[in-house]
Amino acid sequence: MEREISQAVIRRMPRYYRYLGELLESNVERISSNELSKLMHVTASQIRQDLNNFGGFGQQGYGYNVKFLHDEIGKILGLNQMHNVILIGAGNLGQAIANYVNFEKLSFRMIGLFDVNPDKIGNVFSNAEVRHMDELPEFLKDHHVDIAALTLPKDNAEAVAAELVDLGITAIWNFAHVDLEVPENVVVQNVHLSDSLMQLSYNITQI
Amino acid sequence: MEREISQAVIRRMPRYYRYLGELLESNVERISSNELSKLMHVTASQIRQDLNNFGGFGQQGYGYNVKFLHDEIGKILGLNQMHNVILIGAGNLGQAIANYVNFEKLSFRMIGLFDVNPDKIGNVFSNAEVRHMDELPEFLKDHHVDIAALTLPKDNAEAVAAELVDLGITAIWNFAHVDLEVPENVVVQNVHLSDSLMQLSYNITQI
Repeated sequence: MEREISQAVIRRMPRYYRYLGELLESNVERISSNELSKLMHVTASQIRQDLNNFGGFGQQGYGYNVKFLHDEIGKILGLNQMHNVILIGAGNLGQAIANYVNFEKLSFRMIGLFDVNPDKIGNVFSNAEVRHMDELPEFLKDHHVDIAALTLPKDNAEAVAAELVDLGITAIWNFAHVDLEVPENVVVQNVHLSDSLMQLSYNITQI
Repeated sequence: MEREISQAVIRRMPRYYRYLGELLESNVERISSNELSKLMHVTASQIRQDLNNFGGFGQQGYGYNVKFLHDEIGKILGLNQMHNVILIGAGNLGQAIANYVNFEKLSFRMIGLFDVNPDKIGNVFSNAEVRHMDELPEFLKDHHVDIAALTLPKDNAEAVAAELVDLGITAIWNFAHVDLEVPENVVVQNVHLSDSLMQLSYNITQI
């Protein structure tokens, strides 16, 4: 990709991918931007603008080929290649995320969970065994890992993230309630549940 | 609040609240917008603009009173009143969220979990008992509920959301991987984990 595309656009692409996937499942072959607009409750012009960032994909008056557009957006999102995921922190949230990653049948595979709690070591969640954090460096020598999910308390998150980066991890899916400081070549995607709950709480005050 | 404030601003407010909370814990009494800017990696002008939406809170050259600003943002976010939360779907994710809501010590209290799986009924997570979905109407007669969290598979989410709305619920924290169709007076806050993972996957292709 030559041009830099704004994160606001990128944030919307998975939603297109999801709706197109549902259309595919319903055997819809073609859809106009107006129909897609009604379905997704966004303007047709927004859809055209978003997709034009990647070159368009539609023919005037003819609409979008659903399978083609779904596949192309999948490629844009990097879903045409498998990502190996490890997870640090095998508590409730970690177990939920481990199940979730496989369940969603995208291109992500949970290959290992790590924790420091002896009660958790050896358990198997979502086909992946929980190992002790001490085994992480050795594990990373033997396995290619694309993404590390951090599902641990915020007090440990900074130190663990630093260790992961030292060990060569370049993508972190962060559930800890803290903004990680990482080098520029490392990407972090945050899921701050509290922030989301507070945003909901604000919107309640506006009803 | 008289003016409508954009969701982009609202999305940033919890982050201010979090940083100010950490400053408070470190006994910092005052902070300039420049210092806050460095800490949060956003421009000082963004901070001033964001806070001006709510009337400012700072004095030129004197900075912000941390405790005052923290309290005021808390009020804006509706955190000065307790919210009763119920949760539908007591699987791994539900249990994680139940723990999380209480753990974060904000103004949210988990008062009940609901599921249809007989194996789960009667279990207690985060001080709240898991009840059968059939008991929900009766429960809502006896308890004031501010927020329902949906942590169930997407196939059931639409029907359950419709039932919740019929029963008078006006705020939904939705973890199901679907956009819910609800009346205008109902607020929905989505946590779409797959969307987040796909955004991460895209950003990996850009490293």
